[in-house]
Amino acid sequence: MDSNNKKFGFKFIKEDNGARLGTLNVGGVEVPTPVFMPVGTKATVKAMTPEELKEIGFSLILGNTYHLHLRPGEELIREMGGLHNFMHWDRAILTDSGGFQVFSLSPLRKITEEGVEFRNHLDGSKCFLTPEKAIEIQEKLGSDIMMVLDECIPYPSEKSYAEKSLELTLRWAERCKLARSESGGALFGITQGGMYKDLRIRSARETVAIGFDGYAIGGLSVGEEKELMYDMTAISTELFPKDAPRYLMGVGMPEDIVEAVGRGVDMFDCVLPTRCARNGTLFTSRGKLVIKNSRFEKDKRPPDEDCGCYTCRNYSRAYLRHIYQSGEILASRLNTIHNLYYYNNLVTKIRDAVRESRFLEFKKDFYNLRDIGNADADG
Amino acid sequence: MDSNNKKFGFKFIKEDNGARLGTLNVGGVEVPTPVFMPVGTKATVKAMTPEELKEIGFSLILGNTYHLHLRPGEELIREMGGLHNFMHWDRAILTDSGGFQVFSLSPLRKITEEGVEFRNHLDGSKCFLTPEKAIEIQEKLGSDIMMVLDECIPYPSEKSYAEKSLELTLRWAERCKLARSESGGALFGITQGGMYKDLRIRSARETVAIGFDGYAIGGLSVGEEKELMYDMTAISTELFPKDAPRYLMGVGMPEDIVEAVGRGVDMFDCVLPTRCARNGTLFTSRGKLVIKNSRFEKDKRPPDEDCGCYTCRNYSRAYLRHIYQSGEILASRLNTIHNLYYYNNLVTKIRDAVRESRFLEFKKDFYNLRDIGNADADG
Repeated sequence: MDSNNKKFGFKFIKEDNGARLGTLNVGGVEVPTPVFMPVGTKATVKAMTPEELKEIGFSLILGNTYHLHLRPGEELIREMGGLHNFMHWDRAILTDSGGFQVFSLSPLRKITEEGVEFRNHLDGSKCFLTPEKAIEIQEKLGSDIMMVLDECIPYPSEKSYAEKSLELTLRWAERCKLARSESGGALFGITQGGMYKDLRIRSARETVAIGFDGYAIGGLSVGEEKELMYDMTAISTELFPKDAPRYLMGVGMPEDIVEAVGRGVDMFDCVLPTRCARNGTLFTSRGKLVIKNSRFEKDKRPPDEDCGCYTCRNYSRAYLRHIYQSGEILASRLNTIHNLYYYNNLVTKIRDAVRESRFLEFKKDFYNLRDIGNADADG
Repeated sequence: MDSNNKKFGFKFIKEDNGARLGTLNVGGVEVPTPVFMPVGTKATVKAMTPEELKEIGFSLILGNTYHLHLRPGEELIREMGGLHNFMHWDRAILTDSGGFQVFSLSPLRKITEEGVEFRNHLDGSKCFLTPEKAIEIQEKLGSDIMMVLDECIPYPSEKSYAEKSLELTLRWAERCKLARSESGGALFGITQGGMYKDLRIRSARETVAIGFDGYAIGGLSVGEEKELMYDMTAISTELFPKDAPRYLMGVGMPEDIVEAVGRGVDMFDCVLPTRCARNGTLFTSRGKLVIKNSRFEKDKRPPDEDCGCYTCRNYSRAYLRHIYQSGEILASRLNTIHNLYYYNNLVTKIRDAVRESRFLEFKKDFYNLRDIGNADADG
């Protein structure tokens, strides 16, 4: 680990068949790993209060630099006492660099050595994001864990382009490291390399050589086959130092988390649990459940009979279907509570399994229950 | 009082300059009056969980028979154990008769002696609502306090029409009383009579003569001048028995509640606090505050510095403005919590004032604070 920052630490505890158990210390907040981070795009995890997130058990959430930079702006948030204070969240926050959204949301963008010029998706005005600017914004937000600015390439991409791009990402990573303040948050590097094994290896080695507080795997879950994503993940984590946290960005489905943990990943974030919730899809131990389905009309059971969340303890599928069909805000709320509980419970059970050296057994049970459940839920 | 129903009672405690203090006992739930009932149209008070309503202090909410009859239907709710169980609310529920929505939402309707035929606003199919049907639906929902079916006439209406209509409403009221089961909820009569003093008097006298567990004033707040509404209210309550609760339906603004309490009203319901919340308007002790206003952009103060609600304790106007502008669900939630707290706090302060025989003083302070506050809030 390479950190000037006293507020950040990672303790590796043990490994079991590739899966790791650890603890992040982020600004005094203890975060057991593997961890799933809910996405709080615009200074709120959609439909949730901070208290509800804490009640489920979350202590680390993600904020999106791109969105917050555009609205309300990092200067305003800084004046309001930083992102934690602004959004009433007293635990830890990881921020991305804004790069991913520039590449996925902006209608026009031009990449140069200096940075990336783009038109923002709100009003079309021109913006320019550089590695230095990405760090400046994240520090003004008061981020606990910052991410370097990287270029996210589409899938598929030519190897020559993927190589040129990973080299640019490496130079940007060095500039980010130079730009950070001593008083700021921790800083994670991001590895790229498309779906090319040798490029992933090069990116991992050279990123580690620069030295960061943690290492992320970027540019996956962009449309490639699952096996390819898992392979690229394994190739990368093998080269990361054991005593630094590894973060697979933007991933993913419950099975992706189980598979990636088995390949040495410690940290995850994804919009799926919150976004699917608002669209009426619930994750359960027996697979997905689409709540608007008419067969739930008179179903007195909770969404997941094995679940201990507020929603499952108090509401029937029939009620959840009714309020979803009626377009009620409470539907988004109750579904989000359930899905986030499901994700947090998944990593909690993974940690328990690794602690007790039965990760493979856990994994077998995880898949078995879903196979049995397919007839019951929506497959 | 005329009640076969053991589950309902009202205790009149004292009066102070027209304002009354009392206690409703609804199915074992004690409800101090004057009381404000949040509106839970479709088996949910929009954006709120039952726990949040209880935390604010509510123990009686309103459900809309018309909406619940159309979706998901009273049969389904009965099968699910009744409305309380269906929506996870273990305190008291008052249901309206469905009449008001038939007259306000249905594109076509035909009133006969038997009842009212209408096309429902969801799929346009024909429905027929009679006094007996209105009671049957409310009993299937498991309502604690049911309302008789009444005709709601527009404003202005010809006197001859208002008279004919109030006579029909009286006959329907008698049929509702005959139709109720002994095991069902309490039943309130509704007085009508448009804006005609003599008709209001006749309606009140004849409704009281039939005999109900409580008496409601219907057909007000339909576009008439405030003074006219207050006059019609006073005329009606004067004729109601002292030992029965009085309910002014669908009213209203904070000042309407203060004025109507001073004219002997005990119960209120209104969509304003919840609806305004979703539109970004907050009620405060100093008047209304439109949160999207740009002057709140960097305002670190809570919406109402005198308020003890969850929102005011934890969030700034700047944050509330940001999440409102961003279309976040949390904006509707936090604004709704604040507005409902404001309404509940208003009737709580009114009860305290009546208890201590200083209702007039309370009323003076209420208006003074708003006058001072106009420069600060949005007037």
